[in-house]
Amino acid sequence: MKRRLWQLNEYPFHPEKLLYYETIFAIGNGYLGTRATFEEGYPDDSPSTLVHGIFDHAPSMQVPELVGAPNWLDIKITVDGTPLRMITEILDMLKPPEGLLLGFRRTLELDRALLRREVLFRAASGATVRVVFERFASLADVHVLCQRVRIVVVEGTPEIVVESGIDADVTNNGVAHWKNIQTHAADGLIGVTATTQQSGYTLSMASCLNRVSPLETIAHDTRPHVRTLVNLGQNQEVVFDKITSVYTSRDTVDPAQAAQNSAHAAAQTGYDALLQAHTDEWAAYWRDTDIEIEGDERSQVALRFTAYHILIAAPRHDDDVSIGAKTLSGYGYKGHVFWDTELFILPPLTLSQPKIARNLLMYRYKRLAGARRKARANGYEGAMFPWESTDTGEETTPQWSDPHPIDGTRIRIWTGEHEQHISTDIAYAILQYWRWSGDDEFLMKYGAEIVLDTAVFWGSRAEEKNGRYELSQQIGPDEYHENVDNSVFTNRMTIWHLVEALNLLAWLQKHAPTDAERLTAALDLTPARLAKWQDIINRMVVPFDTEKQRHIQFDGFFDLEYIPVPNYEPRVGGVWPMLGHQRALGSQVLKQADIVMLMALIGDQVGSRAIMLNNWHTYYPRTDHGSSLSPAMHAWVAARLGLMDEAEYMFDHAAGIDLEDNKGNIRDGIHGAASGGLWQAVVFGFCGLHLAETGPKLDPRLPPHWKRVKFNVYYRGERREFVVENPVGVARA
Amino acid sequence: MKRRLWQLNEYPFHPEKLLYYETIFAIGNGYLGTRATFEEGYPDDSPSTLVHGIFDHAPSMQVPELVGAPNWLDIKITVDGTPLRMITEILDMLKPPEGLLLGFRRTLELDRALLRREVLFRAASGATVRVVFERFASLADVHVLCQRVRIVVVEGTPEIVVESGIDADVTNNGVAHWKNIQTHAADGLIGVTATTQQSGYTLSMASCLNRVSPLETIAHDTRPHVRTLVNLGQNQEVVFDKITSVYTSRDTVDPAQAAQNSAHAAAQTGYDALLQAHTDEWAAYWRDTDIEIEGDERSQVALRFTAYHILIAAPRHDDDVSIGAKTLSGYGYKGHVFWDTELFILPPLTLSQPKIARNLLMYRYKRLAGARRKARANGYEGAMFPWESTDTGEETTPQWSDPHPIDGTRIRIWTGEHEQHISTDIAYAILQYWRWSGDDEFLMKYGAEIVLDTAVFWGSRAEEKNGRYELSQQIGPDEYHENVDNSVFTNRMTIWHLVEALNLLAWLQKHAPTDAERLTAALDLTPARLAKWQDIINRMVVPFDTEKQRHIQFDGFFDLEYIPVPNYEPRVGGVWPMLGHQRALGSQVLKQADIVMLMALIGDQVGSRAIMLNNWHTYYPRTDHGSSLSPAMHAWVAARLGLMDEAEYMFDHAAGIDLEDNKGNIRDGIHGAASGGLWQAVVFGFCGLHLAETGPKLDPRLPPHWKRVKFNVYYRGERREFVVENPVGVARA
Repeated sequence: MKRRLWQLNEYPFHPEKLLYYETIFAIGNGYLGTRATFEEGYPDDSPSTLVHGIFDHAPSMQVPELVGAPNWLDIKITVDGTPLRMITEILDMLKPPEGLLLGFRRTLELDRALLRREVLFRAASGATVRVVFERFASLADVHVLCQRVRIVVVEGTPEIVVESGIDADVTNNGVAHWKNIQTHAADGLIGVTATTQQSGYTLSMASCLNRVSPLETIAHDTRPHVRTLVNLGQNQEVVFDKITSVYTSRDTVDPAQAAQNSAHAAAQTGYDALLQAHTDEWAAYWRDTDIEIEGDERSQVALRFTAYHILIAAPRHDDDVSIGAKTLSGYGYKGHVFWDTELFILPPLTLSQPKIARNLLMYRYKRLAGARRKARANGYEGAMFPWESTDTGEETTPQWSDPHPIDGTRIRIWTGEHEQHISTDIAYAILQYWRWSGDDEFLMKYGAEIVLDTAVFWGSRAEEKNGRYELSQQIGPDEYHENVDNSVFTNRMTIWHLVEALNLLAWLQKHAPTDAERLTAALDLTPARLAKWQDIINRMVVPFDTEKQRHIQFDGFFDLEYIPVPNYEPRVGGVWPMLGHQRALGSQVLKQADIVMLMALIGDQVGSRAIMLNNWHTYYPRTDHGSSLSPAMHAWVAARLGLMDEAEYMFDHAAGIDLEDNKGNIRDGIHGAASGGLWQAVVFGFCGLHLAETGPKLDPRLPPHWKRVKFNVYYRGERREFVVENPVGVARA
Repeated sequence: MKRRLWQLNEYPFHPEKLLYYETIFAIGNGYLGTRATFEEGYPDDSPSTLVHGIFDHAPSMQVPELVGAPNWLDIKITVDGTPLRMITEILDMLKPPEGLLLGFRRTLELDRALLRREVLFRAASGATVRVVFERFASLADVHVLCQRVRIVVVEGTPEIVVESGIDADVTNNGVAHWKNIQTHAADGLIGVTATTQQSGYTLSMASCLNRVSPLETIAHDTRPHVRTLVNLGQNQEVVFDKITSVYTSRDTVDPAQAAQNSAHAAAQTGYDALLQAHTDEWAAYWRDTDIEIEGDERSQVALRFTAYHILIAAPRHDDDVSIGAKTLSGYGYKGHVFWDTELFILPPLTLSQPKIARNLLMYRYKRLAGARRKARANGYEGAMFPWESTDTGEETTPQWSDPHPIDGTRIRIWTGEHEQHISTDIAYAILQYWRWSGDDEFLMKYGAEIVLDTAVFWGSRAEEKNGRYELSQQIGPDEYHENVDNSVFTNRMTIWHLVEALNLLAWLQKHAPTDAERLTAALDLTPARLAKWQDIINRMVVPFDTEKQRHIQFDGFFDLEYIPVPNYEPRVGGVWPMLGHQRALGSQVLKQADIVMLMALIGDQVGSRAIMLNNWHTYYPRTDHGSSLSPAMHAWVAARLGLMDEAEYMFDHAAGIDLEDNKGNIRDGIHGAASGGLWQAVVFGFCGLHLAETGPKLDPRLPPHWKRVKFNVYYRGERREFVVENPVGVARA
């Protein structure tokens, strides 16, 4: 039964997991994402629709954030006057209840990105109705949002009133971002237009209700709505469709008109045809991106679930936005873009949806100016990308944590200043994209400029000391240790970056001499500068213990207190909060292992297999996996090292991060990086896909219970199917 | 990874599902069952150890019940004075907590029936310990219960105090059953001996703590215990084993001495050797009983989970007890034995563990006297088995429900009087056992007497009216309709029973003439009586609608209100409570479909395929599955009819009854019948195993996503392995 491995269910209603399901059942289409709140609302729910690129910096906030759009889901139903609500318990046995939920099931269909809620509800009058809600955000026309509601009378002859609105009275967890809210309500069409307070983006929504009459249209300051009333007999039913359209000033000069026209046109097309077009687009998405696994159903579902969440956030039609750390599924990290995108979320897109990957890289290209300003402001040359990025390209990492709920203390956040490897991460993603896609045009026009100008930054950043080059005050992937000197990850990746930059320049000189000249002039790539890059490559410190034949995470790491992390199993949270901030800082406990990340990215270049094993056995028992980014990378590297028990264990951990809410913060949104990491753990880790000189090659090591893995990747514009069967050896392209 | 499909996990701690896990993680060995309460207790937990056969009728109760034994799990640990408890939240952020649970995982290993709890706990002093609890009820020596506790210091140098007791201060949900509680505490050995109030069974437990010194032994009126104190440094650990033994006056004349001797001896043997012997016994159990499924991991785990719960309740060494409807895993139905045993739980044992099946049938044989008394008391002849049975063999169905919590009304329970098909269900189980096992000796000595004397009952029970035989005032499997006339299930099964009885007598006359003579004399099987049986066979009413070519569940069924059950999807509870008692009684809504049950039991004898399909399509949309017995039987019959969508849907429902608490009452114990039904749905339903003239034969129809099913059955003492591969046709024995 195919369906079984293509859907997620909630049955019965789990109010205690309200925010979990809101996140995991989010829908989207790469233009916007909408959390799975109920049409009629629920106490303490967190409705949000996040539209790519619509950031705003409220005066009360340290930094800008993605803005929650008006709530287009809004449909309120009453049955004989009783509001349809998800009330599961009779609170007073002696009084007739004000409505009672008798049945509930939600199903997210991953294959066609459609969310369905089925409800059996009894009104105070005794009338009982079955209501089926469906919703999808069209992938065929990303401005169009569709809902269908079917009401069947099971008992009684109720009067049913339906109210459908757009609710602009929304905030980001209490922070108001909208001004100039204008509403429209005429002839069955309702609309809302509003502008963000600081950034001045205008967003407009328009909506109509199909297949319903008569319809009353009601104007309202913040919630225009339509209303209809229908009397139904037993076993009778009514079906209506709500079609909504969204445009912003990023799309067009008159978003209000565009939204109204679009809503009208889509309503004409009708729900069924819109759903068919949407389904067809999704079939094409899955044809390229699905990984099929036989022999492990949990992993199969987890891979589809994570791929789904990457795809619904992936901006297919927009090369001026990128995917935030929490995708578009929650307010976590305020929609900001981190290295998560380039090193975790991008690779599955680079290999399976290269056009989308290109869009995401163009987002960085279009923000080179901001990266250059950051470099200048910090006394460096070239381009230094912000650790957290929004629409502007400026650094938007907050400097302070929120105050502690009890004592009001705040913790200084240093990543904006010191987690500088982000610039190299972007360069890595560009070269990975280029090598897989063969998109020379992108490289010559856009990508090379980033790789080279970030190399310029590193050339100016490296500190010459005692005959070596060093990097002080860094933060590597392991954010438990801040402002360290000679982070092995950052130093070694800087070497890699400069080597790649020199090779790239040589390639350009040969294959694109005009671009080479242009960039040499524009970026001031003088022979002296290039010579210095080579000098840094030759003399950069890479902390290494020659006696123990292992890398050292940073200067002085082994002087810190050793705390064996496995002793803390079966811990529910991280070791870090158990130890407390001060003790953790002074210990060897890692949020994630920098050296494992390094071994994932540049593999054999790190050292011999013996050294890599020493590194693994040193850092694995010190790693807390306090970051959701950690487990998948560890699975990948363990698989490459043939440590299959550890690889499986880490993979299972990664697979449960959102589905099982392993990190306890699913309410804030999907962990985009963990999602992309899972794909990489399978394709790069277990299947060992890599680019050899002759093209893509496999080197598989599957978990013993996996029978077969099948996936597609694009290589130089060609789609290639790979199948790995267990026992491995039966791999074919 | 084999383990994945052989275990169940709880991670992290789910206090809201406390009673769910108490039931599903119960352990047992066919002698007793113990719910998965924590060693140290927890608020509102429901500790219970139920020992087969130990019933007691308290004066305050309508009927007797299985008695909760003293709590042998009792181990209390303090760390620097802080009691180890499963507290998951800091209640007051400003005060140091009185202990905090930092980590938790429980694992039930189905393959060796071992429950493990891993805990990471921080005391108020800051000392942090990792504690691993293991427990199993030995299958190698069913009187022996083993616990191991390992404490590892992760942080600090705590003083650890361990107290291990046997707690006789126990009740059945408030009802006290024990008197003459005597305790023993000397030389490290503690013991409790007590006697049930009304029935006078004596039960004794003795326990000692291994690998610990010094040990203080503390006498106490109801909770003798030992205590030890150990100071541990960081990373140090202590391991101790608690070995307990249980005997009752059903086993020996001096249970106290037996328990003490046994505890001593087992302690000498030691935990590791006891575990090894236990594991070996379980390996043999699984070799015979496991069903392997490829292609459906949820179903695989569900089948192992349900088989586990049947096996831990199955009395391997005792032919004077039977398995209650809720096994030994909870107080539901007071430990009483229903038809659940013979038609649902027995078949998997009959085919895979025939010796245990024989024990369960002997339980009925030994209660023939009670069945004869019930027949006499009701004015009938022969043997009329009680609907609910305990140790005495008397009818122990309560006549009234508990009072309604609001208005105090009680509902009359009629099953004890009118659900008379139980006698035929037992006859069915005997003949099924005989045909598969070839155990002629059992049949001749014991089984035949039951089949024939229950036939005598029916011969006296049938009412001759208007030239036909009828049965008035019956309750079929569908208990929503009480005291109906001419229940198609009961009438038709009575015909089947009388036919089988006549055949059996002929078989005995040929193969065991002495037994035939003995039984003919003893049961007064006169030619006139046998002629009446044949007359009943010929003229018994079987309600049938010749126009619509379908069976009628009972006289007047189609005059009741028709309520289409599918309209109530996705209901969370039954339709019955939604409709209310009065309306439901007057409607066609079925708890389970009598005719589907009939088609399961006697298949083609019910009618042509066309009639069977008419029956299905008539009754399926009327069936509420308000009984946990219903879904598996429906899956079986749907598969035999080739209705694979319905078969899968019903199978999934059956598979989730306990694992997903589909019926909402898992706290009361495992649904034994649903567990056995699941096995039958696979073996008899999807695989189509049946006895042809030449022996066991398959007729498989697998769900499309199932790749392969493998199982073993015993046929006439030989173990036969069957494999069904999909697409079917590749079946082999």
